[in-house]
Amino acid sequence: MKAARFYDRNDIRIEEIEEPAPAEGEVLISVAWCGICGTDLHEYLEGPIFCPTHTTPHPISGETAPVTLGHEFSGVVAALGSGVTDLEVGDHVVVEPYIIDESVDTGPTSKDYHLSENMNFIGLAGRGGGLAEKIAVKRRWVHKISKDLPLDEAALIEPLSVGYHAVERAGGVKEGDIALVGGAGPIGLLTAAVLKAQGATVIISETSSLRRQKALDSGVADYALSPTEVDIPEEVKKLTNGKGADLAFECTSVNVVLDTLFDAIKPQGVIVVVSIWGKPASLDMQKLVLKEVDLRGTIAYVNNHPETIKLVESGKINLKPFITGKILVDNLVDEGFDTLINRNETAVKILVTTNPSFSLDISN
Amino acid sequence: MKAARFYDRNDIRIEEIEEPAPAEGEVLISVAWCGICGTDLHEYLEGPIFCPTHTTPHPISGETAPVTLGHEFSGVVAALGSGVTDLEVGDHVVVEPYIIDESVDTGPTSKDYHLSENMNFIGLAGRGGGLAEKIAVKRRWVHKISKDLPLDEAALIEPLSVGYHAVERAGGVKEGDIALVGGAGPIGLLTAAVLKAQGATVIISETSSLRRQKALDSGVADYALSPTEVDIPEEVKKLTNGKGADLAFECTSVNVVLDTLFDAIKPQGVIVVVSIWGKPASLDMQKLVLKEVDLRGTIAYVNNHPETIKLVESGKINLKPFITGKILVDNLVDEGFDTLINRNETAVKILVTTNPSFSLDISN
Repeated sequence: MKAARFYDRNDIRIEEIEEPAPAEGEVLISVAWCGICGTDLHEYLEGPIFCPTHTTPHPISGETAPVTLGHEFSGVVAALGSGVTDLEVGDHVVVEPYIIDESVDTGPTSKDYHLSENMNFIGLAGRGGGLAEKIAVKRRWVHKISKDLPLDEAALIEPLSVGYHAVERAGGVKEGDIALVGGAGPIGLLTAAVLKAQGATVIISETSSLRRQKALDSGVADYALSPTEVDIPEEVKKLTNGKGADLAFECTSVNVVLDTLFDAIKPQGVIVVVSIWGKPASLDMQKLVLKEVDLRGTIAYVNNHPETIKLVESGKINLKPFITGKILVDNLVDEGFDTLINRNETAVKILVTTNPSFSLDISN
Repeated sequence: MKAARFYDRNDIRIEEIEEPAPAEGEVLISVAWCGICGTDLHEYLEGPIFCPTHTTPHPISGETAPVTLGHEFSGVVAALGSGVTDLEVGDHVVVEPYIIDESVDTGPTSKDYHLSENMNFIGLAGRGGGLAEKIAVKRRWVHKISKDLPLDEAALIEPLSVGYHAVERAGGVKEGDIALVGGAGPIGLLTAAVLKAQGATVIISETSSLRRQKALDSGVADYALSPTEVDIPEEVKKLTNGKGADLAFECTSVNVVLDTLFDAIKPQGVIVVVSIWGKPASLDMQKLVLKEVDLRGTIAYVNNHPETIKLVESGKINLKPFITGKILVDNLVDEGFDTLINRNETAVKILVTTNPSFSLDISN
């Protein structure tokens, strides 16, 4: 079957590999659509980071490069390994793409399996990936979805779960909450979507007018403000009776955005850092201390897929506006990565398929 | 009466001023003992910071310099203003030294009056101070204490309340919690005292061997480790079955201490910043994000005096070991400030009195 495989930095190859078979307890999925994540770009440009090298196998998967890429995907159950009795061939599914040690409790009440030692992701550190025709996944990580939900939109459930968990880390949305989101890239928009679906009034701060427009057109932001045109903390104060935002989300890894959130948050408010920072941040501790701010980290998701899927299935979140491109896997690097690197103001989520019969039209 | 008054940086004068009379709703207190706070030192060395200048009155107190200093004090009720019926002359009291706008809800369920606009402190921004013979204080801020509690120890209830609130900000102590305190200065020790009283196992990281010894001798630390002699995160892991500390408290405003706490805290643990930072901190955001750490600011106290007083009255906290000096107000600068600036390894809390008949012996 066809698969996109990471060999090394600047070396991703589309090649033919053997089709997987589902082992006991596994589900064979025929992948429909797979999104390109910023993490994939980082592996391509600066990796290997999450991916294993050619010589050092990942401690849990045991695999070395090359590995198949892709961790944001949807598909249809193609076959069931022995012991899997609660799914049927033909079911539509998405995957919570974790590689986690067998000894870790990943049950439905666990709140921290995603922080376990050597945790990594399917589609980065081995066990196949969504940028292939098929993948065999342990039953635990497969989530069934309604057949009414288009499979292209379903591919965005994985990054939406990141936003869901970020909002959970903030303590959730309370009635009347006003949330400020710094940055309207994919994760900023999807975090805003969860906030909006949970009833918050959402203010987005974003320098790009195209991204601000997307935030407004997609309905996830009530206000989209430019920090180069207005004083964000002042505008937030106007919108909150002088109080400041109840919640804030840092989705840019830009220090000035973090500073702005500290100025715009209310006393005892929560700022969640959703972005991955490549360098240390400079933090004005006086603002943290004198306003008693909570600065909280968040990473990925933990038992958040079921609730995230419900938000989408119920129609509270419409993921369609965030699909800004569809390509064949053969064009992954030149059309996919290149667009995200060089034209990222208009691109939110580019979906990839290995199936040449799928329509690449995103207009409806 | 005699009072220590802040005129300007390096200009604190011990002088005779008029004795206050209690207005309606106020309590006249004959001050017994008043502790010297780091904040007082900062006013002396770098101020005015909290203190008003000679020309700009504080927005709430309306006062300009000179102002009487001292906000950590105990005393005896000397007279009652009209309308105060729930105290008696002769009662022993401590003061929650707030200057807060009349419009702010300071009721017993308020959790944020200490973050209200222009909040400041008695003994810094006006309304008298504890470094005087007498002070008139609004009934709201006066807390009655048992006559069984020595008045010298009671003077430490104010800084102990800072530790109490810091622990509250961390979410309190749960059974089996292991807490790491960075720094064994006055606030580090008093925060440790609250943690210990609430049932935590307490590890203190402190470079000074004298301070480590004080932490052990006073009974507030189970372990006192030197970061120049051992690897603190490694030692904490050994003491926590590899997990890391449940709670951590930054009480030094030193960046390397903050870094150490990030390495020693468990995933999803809480780090509370109790210290006042004069410069921005450099923060490794990857540690915040990938471990989902909560970094929380805390300042002063809010409705924490009653519970703090109970901890001391019940004997769960013994404040006596932290009284390392007693002086007359006439020697405030040369004996008090000078000791804290130049010999702060052995000094924890120096108490000051205006009463020449009080014993200055701290040996019993």
